Amino acid sequence: MEVNADNFFKAAALDKPRVTNKVGSNVTLINVMQIAGLNTLGISIARIDYAPLGQNPPHTHPRATEILTVLEGTLYVGFVTSNQPAPNRNKFLSKVLNKGDVFVFPAGLIHFQFNPNPHKPAIAIAALSSQNPGAITIANAVFGSDPQISDDVLAKAFQVEKNTIDWLQAQFWENNHN
Amino acid sequence: MEVNADNFFKAAALDKPRVTNKVGSNVTLINVMQIAGLNTLGISIARIDYAPLGQNPPHTHPRATEILTVLEGTLYVGFVTSNQPAPNRNKFLSKVLNKGDVFVFPAGLIHFQFNPNPHKPAIAIAALSSQNPGAITIANAVFGSDPQISDDVLAKAFQVEKNTIDWLQAQFWENNHN
Amino acid sequence: MEVNADNFFKAAALDKPRVTNKVGSNVTLINVMQIAGLNTLGISIARIDYAPLGQNPPHTHPRATEILTVLEGTLYVGFVTSNQPAPNRNKFLSKVLNKGDVFVFPAGLIHFQFNPNPHKPAIAIAALSSQNPGAITIANAVFGSDPQISDDVLAKAFQVEKNTIDWLQAQFWENNHN
Amino acid sequence: MEVNADNFFKAAALDKPRVTNKVGSNVTLINVMQIAGLNTLGISIARIDYAPLGQNPPHTHPRATEILTVLEGTLYVGFVTSNQPAPNRNKFLSKVLNKGDVFVFPAGLIHFQFNPNPHKPAIAIAALSSQNPGAITIANAVFGSDPQISDDVLAKAFQVEKNTIDWLQAQFWENNHN
Amino acid sequence: MEVNADNFFKAAALDKPRVTNKVGSNVTLINVMQIAGLNTLGISIARIDYAPLGQNPPHTHPRATEILTVLEGTLYVGFVTSNQPAPNRNKFLSKVLNKGDVFVFPAGLIHFQFNPNPHKPAIAIAALSSQNPGAITIANAVFGSDPQISDDVLAKAFQVEKNTIDWLQAQFWENNHN
Amino acid sequence: MEVNADNFFKAAALDKPRVTNKVGSNVTLINVMQIAGLNTLGISIARIDYAPLGQNPPHTHPRATEILTVLEGTLYVGFVTSNQPAPNRNKFLSKVLNKGDVFVFPAGLIHFQFNPNPHKPAIAIAALSSQNPGAITIANAVFGSDPQISDDVLAKAFQVEKNTIDWLQAQFWENNHN
Repeated sequence: MEVNADNFFKAAALDKPRVTNKVGSNVTLINVMQIAGLNTLGISIARIDYAPLGQNPPHTHPRATEILTVLEGTLYVGFVTSNQPAPNRNKFLSKVLNKGDVFVFPAGLIHFQFNPNPHKPAIAIAALSSQNPGAITIANAVFGSDPQISDDVLAKAFQVEKNTIDWLQAQFWENNHN
Repeated sequence: MEVNADNFFKAAALDKPRVTNKVGSNVTLINVMQIAGLNTLGISIARIDYAPLGQNPPHTHPRATEILTVLEGTLYVGFVTSNQPAPNRNKFLSKVLNKGDVFVFPAGLIHFQFNPNPHKPAIAIAALSSQNPGAITIANAVFGSDPQISDDVLAKAFQVEKNTIDWLQAQFWENNHN
Repeated sequence: MEVNADNFFKAAALDKPRVTNKVGSNVTLINVMQIAGLNTLGISIARIDYAPLGQNPPHTHPRATEILTVLEGTLYVGFVTSNQPAPNRNKFLSKVLNKGDVFVFPAGLIHFQFNPNPHKPAIAIAALSSQNPGAITIANAVFGSDPQISDDVLAKAFQVEKNTIDWLQAQFWENNHN
Repeated sequence: MEVNADNFFKAAALDKPRVTNKVGSNVTLINVMQIAGLNTLGISIARIDYAPLGQNPPHTHPRATEILTVLEGTLYVGFVTSNQPAPNRNKFLSKVLNKGDVFVFPAGLIHFQFNPNPHKPAIAIAALSSQNPGAITIANAVFGSDPQISDDVLAKAFQVEKNTIDWLQAQFWENNHN
Repeated sequence: MEVNADNFFKAAALDKPRVTNKVGSNVTLINVMQIAGLNTLGISIARIDYAPLGQNPPHTHPRATEILTVLEGTLYVGFVTSNQPAPNRNKFLSKVLNKGDVFVFPAGLIHFQFNPNPHKPAIAIAALSSQNPGAITIANAVFGSDPQISDDVLAKAFQVEKNTIDWLQAQFWENNHN
Repeated sequence: MEVNADNFFKAAALDKPRVTNKVGSNVTLINVMQIAGLNTLGISIARIDYAPLGQNPPHTHPRATEILTVLEGTLYVGFVTSNQPAPNRNKFLSKVLNKGDVFVFPAGLIHFQFNPNPHKPAIAIAALSSQNPGAITIANAVFGSDPQISDDVLAKAFQVEKNTIDWLQAQFWENNHN
């Protein structure tokens, strides 16, 4: 089989603003599904758009570390360390990033980016250390799965009443599967 | 340096029941912190105790897959797939496990185990594909981090009022750091 | 393709005693052959039964480290280090394990477990750092291969008479291939 | 040791234009030397500036694949495959990239980017699949090493007269070591 | 620190015949202990000398695959597959190698080389896929460890009388530790 | 499927001299294309012939470290470090190797071997840390690719006139594709 430059290329339009979702963000990921030549090569890239006060909500990448730089605007970013002994037990590390700053989210940790500016959008470019990093939006996976996780389990895990869980589940199902 | 059998050994008492925590579980993990000889060897083992109706609440291992077998009792277990296209978008896969059954939780995915029996405890042995797998309890990391994640961010991410977030944060801080 | 919980599950009956073999043991391994979802995930689990005075005889795992905990009874376990300079040259590291103890057998090293109790069986759970760890029972591979290794080679390697080798080969062939 | 957000952060000013070098480019790489928290995490990021008609000349990364997106301007990019049998023997794969396009340079292959516009600069963001990818500019390494490679060797390898090699070496030494 | 060619070099005299040991072989391995620059690079090389009728007796490399070519003479080589289901259960794969032939011994499998010529020595060059592959000579590790493995264990594992084991142990201890 | 010794064997004739090419060398590589059993095992081996004053010209292996020993003759070998800060910036490390010496070329770095003897050939055995290491001859890839790289790009990269580039390209195309 003759190799071809198009196996390594995608007209991804990463320069174009995207319409943001309900929480005010949009991730355009270019991974091995878009560029077959990435197979086994261990990297992918994304553009992330943030509406004013928008966020890329708490999520993890099960198979990748992320490195991010801000192209436009300001981002308040952070991640939470794992269940370690004090003083690092679920420590929240955060930073305000301005244009041109770089930040790293270590593999598998819960992290988010938030645009604190009420008037201006923000844009970031992020790269991930896998050709298929995966993403798990915490709220969607926990409260919007298909089928729903038993509300008995979630009520105890989150220490709220079952009807609070039911209400959350109704809402996230709607968001996540329609 | 002369090697020694004790570098590969731990009197871990994995046969002994543990007192369970607020949500009714207790994970006794034997990793490279307990057995120095595990360094770079890519495996660890744990005993998990579950009180009646207790759970090992939704969590991830940022650096490991888990394989589990039930020693005593019954467990209702599950994990949620990542943000994939339909029909696998945040799909919840679950199973009731009886004594002797085996189940796999793929690396980095949110999973839990719940003891549905209101009268009897349950016990499992789990193994993880890292000498330092890490664990992130979702509720603790999201609502009980130190310092707390801004309630503005969480209210929007979880689509609840800020005072619901504040109440959750107060509760999880208490659990997680005292 | 829609994923399914059964791809990650096996009704393995690891709680049930097994009939032991000629040397008094039985390994029930749950690997990627039994659970297809383990593919590439780097872990597997096993129950090992030991008859009174039974043993899991000297063997290696060509692609995995093993971590083991004792569920019932007592085990005398050990492994031998590789051909290193003194004082670690083929050093035999051993330990008596009681219920609840944990021991590690580093990848590729020759190891065994022996139940020293003449009256009671023993049980262990072991985990291995590969979805397909492999196992090579030394006596079977050396003296019971198909076809047999030349007795000229083995007589010199083990510094015994060829008729001793021939007798060993006859015996292990019988065990291993019938 | 208490972890700190600054271990994962760099005020890298990747939004700021850089003065370009003699061949019209400038690579600002943020790797584990700039962000210690990247250690073992397998990723880094760079901004690349291109003057009008400037180039990031033929080079390789000995330990990384690169994925690149164009922020401003146009780039003519390409890489050459290895010494394979026909029809893929040292095949040159090239593409003109516009703003927002994405291209992949597989690990270890010789590649370049060239700004074909005589009037406008170009900018790209690139990510690499190592926290310490390395870079080898072919002309510098071959003709500008310290000490110089013997001109006998290079004359035969490049099938030119020794005085051509000597002239190239004088020139690249100057560029590369002053 | 300034790098130096000597970190990547060893005057190993791999062209020189070696005095062979009791079973008629001698392995001269150049690994990371001899060349510090090999660290993390995943390769090593060896010369192996074989006396007439000499052998490199059954052994494994716990962390490497081996590829071998014959420089002088003839070698009868083989390896045994692991405990798989029939028809591959402990299958012995062997080959007679002449000068210039190449053979592969997969990682962790028991293998040997034997010089069938009663008059002439043989020489091979082997390479291993680790900078620290390790080697475990089966007879030495099983019968010549320090301290000795219990003869109860070995008698049952090898299905011979304890005094046969004792005799083997006396012999291999002598060989291996003096 | 029944495994077979021939899956791990190649009658490679590595003992036989090869006709050398235009620059006076010939690499006979035995990799996964010749021995299917090498798949995933991370190693390959080669014989290299050098005519008097012949060379294996500057090249890289995109996916492997190389370790080499001299069987016959003398070799002047070297590699160039990457674009690091002084004093290691594109440093050329070289060594004269005699029969039996061993040298390491770290993964991805530009290296060569040259036979300085005007009368006698040289022979080396090299091993590489991949079953498919790849090779990129710098001059062929840069000046002999198919199609040719634009002479505008190369003239600036190598700081020579375009007609010098054109002349080099004509010459290397001839060598490389006929």
